[in-house]
Amino acid sequence: MPILLNNPELEVVVWPEDTSCDRDWLLENAPGATGIIVLLSDKLSDYLCILEHIDVPELAKRGVKLGYTPDVLTDAVADLSIMLALMAGRNAKETTQIVQSGQWPNHVWSPFGFCGPQLSATPTSPTRTAGFIGFGRIAKATLARLVPFGFTRCLYTANPSTPPNAAADAQVAAKYGIKEVHRVNMAELARESDVIFVLAPGGQNTYHIVNENFLKQMKKTAVLVNTSRGTLVDSDALAKALREGWLHGAGVDVVEGEPDVDANHPLVKAPRCVVLPHIASATTETRIEMATLAVNNLVNGIFGKPMPAELNTSR
Amino acid sequence: MPILLNNPELEVVVWPEDTSCDRDWLLENAPGATGIIVLLSDKLSDYLCILEHIDVPELAKRGVKLGYTPDVLTDAVADLSIMLALMAGRNAKETTQIVQSGQWPNHVWSPFGFCGPQLSATPTSPTRTAGFIGFGRIAKATLARLVPFGFTRCLYTANPSTPPNAAADAQVAAKYGIKEVHRVNMAELARESDVIFVLAPGGQNTYHIVNENFLKQMKKTAVLVNTSRGTLVDSDALAKALREGWLHGAGVDVVEGEPDVDANHPLVKAPRCVVLPHIASATTETRIEMATLAVNNLVNGIFGKPMPAELNTSR
Repeated sequence: MPILLNNPELEVVVWPEDTSCDRDWLLENAPGATGIIVLLSDKLSDYLCILEHIDVPELAKRGVKLGYTPDVLTDAVADLSIMLALMAGRNAKETTQIVQSGQWPNHVWSPFGFCGPQLSATPTSPTRTAGFIGFGRIAKATLARLVPFGFTRCLYTANPSTPPNAAADAQVAAKYGIKEVHRVNMAELARESDVIFVLAPGGQNTYHIVNENFLKQMKKTAVLVNTSRGTLVDSDALAKALREGWLHGAGVDVVEGEPDVDANHPLVKAPRCVVLPHIASATTETRIEMATLAVNNLVNGIFGKPMPAELNTSR
Repeated sequence: MPILLNNPELEVVVWPEDTSCDRDWLLENAPGATGIIVLLSDKLSDYLCILEHIDVPELAKRGVKLGYTPDVLTDAVADLSIMLALMAGRNAKETTQIVQSGQWPNHVWSPFGFCGPQLSATPTSPTRTAGFIGFGRIAKATLARLVPFGFTRCLYTANPSTPPNAAADAQVAAKYGIKEVHRVNMAELARESDVIFVLAPGGQNTYHIVNENFLKQMKKTAVLVNTSRGTLVDSDALAKALREGWLHGAGVDVVEGEPDVDANHPLVKAPRCVVLPHIASATTETRIEMATLAVNNLVNGIFGKPMPAELNTSR
């Protein structure tokens, strides 16, 4: 806010609450604005065509520039990906519920009770393989965090339209100090990985890329983490896979159809499935950096300068 | 079991269920045994004086050797310590409960909703300090995992009877590639740390070492993790600190008086406090390694050889 309010050339109109903007208020105040910042929760798709699915050709036709906030949330999402991998393996859903529901005093201890696969390598299982569906900045930041857990192999899948690049893979392996980084197909990724992170873009090309066929090929001791978009994972297939033990557990921050995910949703009811309400970027530091970048995009856009992060709407 | 059953010199008597041993069965079968393996859940303190608090002088007087299972659980506990640090910062208790209780569809999104402190360093907050109460193997394994999150400083407290060792601290810093490793007092640890891990032994010397006075000195954005013994933390003080915002959050795998921790326990009711039912070593790999070490201790002890891990009962 200080960046905007301290600029004498700007007239700033602000929705005064820390909640979603009232739609009538917006429709009254938006016309004539030179620039506008909208948030995830502003339901404007029929009006400004801006939300998770952006009508880019319409913006290009009208000559509207579009700024966004990439990169600044990389570390926050990588942190949450590690948290979900651990929670899925260590049965955090069941163990926290036992305590919260007051059942700890009555719980019968047994030597392998609550046991799941260990994220870290151990003397008797000394290697670990990380699998990534999509291998961009967040995937690499997640890989970096896995190295001290004893991960020595990294497999990934990528957009079929981009050619394989063994030299780049070797550079990534050298940078993080692991033995192997290899691009593979989905079947090999499923078969070989101890933990699989879904970190590819949404859209038609990746719709339900994690389906029954993929899940059936996973290791029974593996875990799946989705911190990208809900549409990449077939929720019914994942719930069935968890009920039948095709994999050990899952952690998802995003669900197809969110936020209409109630207590009867198959993933909410599924065993060993941690479901979070899309909080991967929700840290104080990251949200401040997202806000700062959004404002700098806005101000530069208004005054005809290059935005720090502008989407090329002409492609 | 194969190690025992395949040894022709041993007669093996085994409680047949994967649950706590029936006490009458044990009292009937234990007399005359040359060696015995007992588990956490076998309530024998009045009979064999073996449980979490071991009557070591009594064992020494009777000439009973005591094997235990150190080290093999280091990585499992370090993994869980990282998981709890992330869960405490990212409000995992509240966010998972919102989803599980079916409230996600009704939740009003706001720019800083669910936001907590980010474990990773960020461009605008580029350093992080880890604090350890106790700095043994598990603490160092936890520190190793924090390095890719951007931690550059490590502070710790240690048993006052051991002298400071700046050369050893410098070696640890060099080994993990961080700038500073310093032994400090409790006040400095509380003031300077972004995350504090309680990893010291239990007993009288550390009883309620984390109390109101300590918690009041912590950063409001810091989190506390206890994966050692419940007695080190004053539960009432921690619950009060969380209610009043002296620190951001906490994650505890152990609670004083466990397992008598019901839904009305102050920490179970406290905001931003994740409570787990003592599962830090509960991974399949680690429990197998603990079992194998326990059996090797037993067999060597029976045949008069040195145990792989024997407690010196004469000190």
